[in-house]
Amino acid sequence: MPIVTIQVTREGTAPDRPSVTAEEKAALIAGVSEVLLRVLNKPLESTFVVIEEVDTDNWGWGGLPVLDYRRQRAAKK
Amino acid sequence: MPIVTIQVTREGTAPDRPSVTAEEKAALIAGVSEVLLRVLNKPLESTFVVIEEVDTDNWGWGGLPVLDYRRQRAAKK
Amino acid sequence: MPIVTIQVTREGTAPDRPSVTAEEKAALIAGVSEVLLRVLNKPLESTFVVIEEVDTDNWGWGGLPVLDYRRQRAAKK
Amino acid sequence: MPIVTIQVTREGTAPDRPSVTAEEKAALIAGVSEVLLRVLNKPLESTFVVIEEVDTDNWGWGGLPVLDYRRQRAAKK
Amino acid sequence: MPIVTIQVTREGTAPDRPSVTAEEKAALIAGVSEVLLRVLNKPLESTFVVIEEVDTDNWGWGGLPVLDYRRQRAAKK
Amino acid sequence: MPIVTIQVTREGTAPDRPSVTAEEKAALIAGVSEVLLRVLNKPLESTFVVIEEVDTDNWGWGGLPVLDYRRQRAAKK
Repeated sequence: MPIVTIQVTREGTAPDRPSVTAEEKAALIAGVSEVLLRVLNKPLESTFVVIEEVDTDNWGWGGLPVLDYRRQRAAKK
Repeated sequence: MPIVTIQVTREGTAPDRPSVTAEEKAALIAGVSEVLLRVLNKPLESTFVVIEEVDTDNWGWGGLPVLDYRRQRAAKK
Repeated sequence: MPIVTIQVTREGTAPDRPSVTAEEKAALIAGVSEVLLRVLNKPLESTFVVIEEVDTDNWGWGGLPVLDYRRQRAAKK
Repeated sequence: MPIVTIQVTREGTAPDRPSVTAEEKAALIAGVSEVLLRVLNKPLESTFVVIEEVDTDNWGWGGLPVLDYRRQRAAKK
Repeated sequence: MPIVTIQVTREGTAPDRPSVTAEEKAALIAGVSEVLLRVLNKPLESTFVVIEEVDTDNWGWGGLPVLDYRRQRAAKK
Repeated sequence: MPIVTIQVTREGTAPDRPSVTAEEKAALIAGVSEVLLRVLNKPLESTFVVIEEVDTDNWGWGGLPVLDYRRQRAAKK
């Protein structure tokens, strides 16, 4: 009965995608469920997966909203 | 000071309801708060309840998005 | 497929009980699962419940560890 | 590598603000990250902060949706 | 910056193992981090994984503590 | 009614301390509660704080258990 919660920022993986696509969500669900099956022998039908998409304003890193932090890190390089 | 978090899919309980209604949410809040009062003697005013509605694309079961999994299970019967 | 998470302090409901008992945990599980069945028509077998017991040092209320806050409130009365 | 999750109701701090502003979110992120640095010596760049805004219908207190509970408490005074 | 939380019961995968081993935990961490890399292109160093082991008394399924529920299901077959 | 959850590894801030001390926990609780008061005007008595200490085996970073990841990073410098 594992529960896997995946928290990611609400962003796309390519410039023309505003957010994670349904296909990518399905691939995340399949992928982590298979990890639980392979490592701990948990049957697929006993694993729940919850994906939480978090607005970039609501995600902090380095003491800053994440987009500001990324800009700061890019500027330093 | 209990905290009860209820995660459900964002779906209605009847075909004409797209999501959990405000009345149903109030009934969930009342119901679980009463369970904490009855079982652990926690006063109602010390219990917080948070309801999280999760899009069906973001909920996985059986290694699949939940709507696909339900269809698969229905087809097997 | 609801998931209900119940967070409570690791304390007993009577002076001779250091923590929530197995019977009380079973009553919490039964109680909240029945609320989900009654209000949202979720079958019992599709509901997961996770109880998290939190040490009183690790629970804050009123800007203080919870035992200090309770003492402060009791002293004010 | 601390993770700080802040759950608040989706409400503004002034009548003309429907929700927490981006500036307030940035101040929350900065504030809690600094607490982790000051108290536990955790570098800013190792702390993640996630802010979850919860609709008032989805937040329960005192066995009621939170707006109903606040009205009940105000009426008692 | 994904955060993946894996909740499992505190049980071993073989009769002589009382709980998930350190090797199995490392395999879970590697496995889910690779899924985030492969599906969403998230660099390994930006993913946090938290494994939460839950005592079987504290995990409910089917309205019962999970060990009781498994016994009930096994008896029905 | 904010809820702040702080997840940290179960480690001390000095070689002779095996874990976060009660004084440090109290300082975390006071600190984050004051941030909520200052930024969002939330009264101290309406904020709950929950500190979750996670064993280092159960925390992953960079696709590895966190102690292995730190060693790897230290070796690279």
